Amino acid sequence: MAYNLLKGKKGIIFGALNSNSIAWKIAERAHEEGAELVLTNTPLAIRMGDMDELAAKTGSQMIAADATSVTDLENLFSKAMEIFGGQIDFVLHSIGMSPNVRKKLPYDDINYDFFAKTLDISAISFHKMIQVAKKTDAIREWGSIVAVSYIAAQRTLFEYNDMADAKAVLESIARSFGYIYGREKHVRINTISQSPTPTTAGQGVKGFSGLMDFTERMSPLGNATADECADYCITLFSDLTKKVTMQNLYHDGGFSSMGMSARAMTQYNKSLECKECQENPLNRQDAEL
Amino acid sequence: MAYNLLKGKKGIIFGALNSNSIAWKIAERAHEEGAELVLTNTPLAIRMGDMDELAAKTGSQMIAADATSVTDLENLFSKAMEIFGGQIDFVLHSIGMSPNVRKKLPYDDINYDFFAKTLDISAISFHKMIQVAKKTDAIREWGSIVAVSYIAAQRTLFEYNDMADAKAVLESIARSFGYIYGREKHVRINTISQSPTPTTAGQGVKGFSGLMDFTERMSPLGNATADECADYCITLFSDLTKKVTMQNLYHDGGFSSMGMSARAMTQYNKSLECKECQENPLNRQDAEL
Amino acid sequence: MAYNLLKGKKGIIFGALNSNSIAWKIAERAHEEGAELVLTNTPLAIRMGDMDELAAKTGSQMIAADATSVTDLENLFSKAMEIFGGQIDFVLHSIGMSPNVRKKLPYDDINYDFFAKTLDISAISFHKMIQVAKKTDAIREWGSIVAVSYIAAQRTLFEYNDMADAKAVLESIARSFGYIYGREKHVRINTISQSPTPTTAGQGVKGFSGLMDFTERMSPLGNATADECADYCITLFSDLTKKVTMQNLYHDGGFSSMGMSARAMTQYNKSLECKECQENPLNRQDAEL
Amino acid sequence: MAYNLLKGKKGIIFGALNSNSIAWKIAERAHEEGAELVLTNTPLAIRMGDMDELAAKTGSQMIAADATSVTDLENLFSKAMEIFGGQIDFVLHSIGMSPNVRKKLPYDDINYDFFAKTLDISAISFHKMIQVAKKTDAIREWGSIVAVSYIAAQRTLFEYNDMADAKAVLESIARSFGYIYGREKHVRINTISQSPTPTTAGQGVKGFSGLMDFTERMSPLGNATADECADYCITLFSDLTKKVTMQNLYHDGGFSSMGMSARAMTQYNKSLECKECQENPLNRQDAEL
Repeated sequence: MAYNLLKGKKGIIFGALNSNSIAWKIAERAHEEGAELVLTNTPLAIRMGDMDELAAKTGSQMIAADATSVTDLENLFSKAMEIFGGQIDFVLHSIGMSPNVRKKLPYDDINYDFFAKTLDISAISFHKMIQVAKKTDAIREWGSIVAVSYIAAQRTLFEYNDMADAKAVLESIARSFGYIYGREKHVRINTISQSPTPTTAGQGVKGFSGLMDFTERMSPLGNATADECADYCITLFSDLTKKVTMQNLYHDGGFSSMGMSARAMTQYNKSLECKECQENPLNRQDAEL
Repeated sequence: MAYNLLKGKKGIIFGALNSNSIAWKIAERAHEEGAELVLTNTPLAIRMGDMDELAAKTGSQMIAADATSVTDLENLFSKAMEIFGGQIDFVLHSIGMSPNVRKKLPYDDINYDFFAKTLDISAISFHKMIQVAKKTDAIREWGSIVAVSYIAAQRTLFEYNDMADAKAVLESIARSFGYIYGREKHVRINTISQSPTPTTAGQGVKGFSGLMDFTERMSPLGNATADECADYCITLFSDLTKKVTMQNLYHDGGFSSMGMSARAMTQYNKSLECKECQENPLNRQDAEL
Repeated sequence: MAYNLLKGKKGIIFGALNSNSIAWKIAERAHEEGAELVLTNTPLAIRMGDMDELAAKTGSQMIAADATSVTDLENLFSKAMEIFGGQIDFVLHSIGMSPNVRKKLPYDDINYDFFAKTLDISAISFHKMIQVAKKTDAIREWGSIVAVSYIAAQRTLFEYNDMADAKAVLESIARSFGYIYGREKHVRINTISQSPTPTTAGQGVKGFSGLMDFTERMSPLGNATADECADYCITLFSDLTKKVTMQNLYHDGGFSSMGMSARAMTQYNKSLECKECQENPLNRQDAEL
Repeated sequence: MAYNLLKGKKGIIFGALNSNSIAWKIAERAHEEGAELVLTNTPLAIRMGDMDELAAKTGSQMIAADATSVTDLENLFSKAMEIFGGQIDFVLHSIGMSPNVRKKLPYDDINYDFFAKTLDISAISFHKMIQVAKKTDAIREWGSIVAVSYIAAQRTLFEYNDMADAKAVLESIARSFGYIYGREKHVRINTISQSPTPTTAGQGVKGFSGLMDFTERMSPLGNATADECADYCITLFSDLTKKVTMQNLYHDGGFSSMGMSARAMTQYNKSLECKECQENPLNRQDAEL
């Protein structure tokens, strides 16, 4: 169902790869709500992914840009304004990658060049995109900028590695730049802290499916899906949330406010009570964990 | 501008007194967005306030109810379902009152019967209303409950007195009941932590106008108004935020994420630099503060 | 090992029942560190528990007081000052009880008189004790007040019921009164948010042992024991923490900052992988949870 | 007054420059409490500062090390263990520097090489030091690591620039590594979020004295001094806080839990009420802020 919440608005979407991507769903929903879009990703992602399908579906143009390159971002914002014939109303940042995770380097044996890359790609790219937008006055007064984050910024999850630190910077940048862009142009900047989501990136994290089961049982409303994230994001791009800024907004079925649910505890208790579990070879790993 | 976000939805609004009330603005906006409403307040508030004007404007019925009385609440939900011919989609709780504040009893000399009343009226009423709603199965699956809160629940403000503790319980109830109502009926429960707002209640707090000036200069987007709060609340009642629950959501122009703004600091510094301020009789009060 | 951290200091300990009590351990450690103590509890608790053993061990006097009674508290502080021959340096509040939990009334069917009692005993008693202390000028400049809390104040745990709301008020009172007692007498007020602890009260919570296992595996340092809590509390009573106030301090082996540990996930995953668990009768309960 | 809290313990102190440094005070207090120390800083800081005075006073050895250099850190830990004849009990990280702040590049026009340096010096150095320590098994079981942080990690302060983002990463690293070092060696990692402190670095921040006045009046106990920070830090190095980990601990006289104090509001209100302030040339700057 559509409400014309973004009628006449123009937006840039970073990070759609394929139909599992959160950014993909947001682009679809923004289009349904009446927005005009420019889609962007790295040249490699454009080659590997299905973005032209999304562009066709939403009548959008695609502009390749490496979000860590200021030059690429300048080109992107300048071209987008040409295409739109004016300023932009909203921007989505849904980008994250850790070479340390990819190379399976554990957090106590990370490579520092990789760490710098994790931060650059997953967090500083957010600063770069905002700084370029502000310098070129690309965003309309009362515009809205959103980045997708994860609760790892507040609470440690095994195997999430240096992406946790990257999300912490990402959310910090939302606050730091939210202050400046807010006071000068009334542009608001927020992050959505989304449930674990089976995107291409998400599924790459070790132990992902067990975690999804746990968070599903912990969250009273269950995990939030990418489609639901898109719905929520639309409200943040709309004119109904003009005074919400510098916030990290949990979109997670209640997970972040849970200590322990009866459902998750019951499932966990089974493992304590059954014989087969006691003999489970996983037990042997315990010593190493 | 209206989007039909609440088309076909039915809601109960607690706490509208006059056109300054946040609940009043929310009722107006919900009506514009297509909702059918029942308005409620205490018999006294109905006599003193202008609720019939709001009822007329929004085509709503009024039902008197003391939100601290389980019997009144049972009657309210039962009648509302009769009027609507079925279940309710959303509920707003915008109620707060402290006899200690009214009687100017300072926080280190409060009356404990009054304290119990502050909690009962401002917070436990929220539990009562939800417990009655759940017992009578008054709220539709995926319904939405919102209460209006204030940052005093996290950070102490002089003169806000036991209302701070009441807001802390209010937000805790949103979490505690959000878990149970969520897992069983997918009903979500959140609080909006709103900027200081010049309602009848707000203006009663000592030192309110100085505080409003300070928060206005601290918040990059300025204080959020009651009208803007209504816009935001609409998104929380709509189907676009189905997986947001057990959250306290700051709607405050960024205030909650600010440590110090240049604007507020500049204003403050004037008081340090000028001679007239040094001689200001207010200085003499300093010792007592 | 003792350091004389509390040499010459005088303190009142609320809530020691038997040698499992956190308050008991704190009294023992405070005594070891050189403090003189007055122990207090309700007349019933004094009859039922082993407090005279603790009094003998620590050379302390016992004064019966119902912490919800202002009169009892006035008597307590006045007698304690007599015994000490002067002002008091520190106070511990380790009190909590919910009639709703005891009577197994679930959170969506609680009795409101019981709810009021839960709040009065577990939280408002803290306000009463501080208000009485301040009115009678019972606490020395730069004194320290500590209450024992639990993470349920921030995150919902099944079966913890209205105690969660009580802990939220308790922590709010620490902030609200911390401001006033701080600015006027430099007395600091903090809460320790302790790991689940197998005290008499803790063990009464349904599902406690499964929860203890889970938090043990989630916390990198394991659950914090009552003995360790006593060590920590000593630092907060000492002169080394004079500028720490209005804080809720997690003493939990890291639990509060964990999203998911490898150890807890491994244990949980066993329940997903084994056949016996699938056939476990607990599964049938799932629908009801 | 000394308690022998660190008797027999060995520690490394990063970041003492002169007697205004927080690290300096911590080194002095740790020595008083019986610890043996190795002091470290960059070769430049050692030349410019007064560290040999501190070394003499505390009977410590100095080892030059650039905390961003893994090689230097390896050398440092290896030499320190030689000097101590064994493992280390505690480590202090009190390091921060932003070339963007130094060059007065505002947050919306920062240089990204400088940003990377800010993060490397102020935050990633913390990861490097811990990774080197863990790889060389330099820290004893139940050891303690502390870094000095600032509330800018949670709330934006004008002019604090990219140091806010650096502090956010610093605190995230404390959590991420606290999990791993905790589960494997029971080493705890925490950050102290300290009041603004007139160190050489602090005084360099624009608008520092006005801010100090404001936080002094906001904090019920006043700003925490470097000496008081040293006292607090001692408790975190001691055996009394063994189960506190992955925490950011506010040491700020209550500032972090304040929304508005009567004292600060009174001072602020003077600026609103006096004529001289209205005519103050600072007013003209308002438009630019």
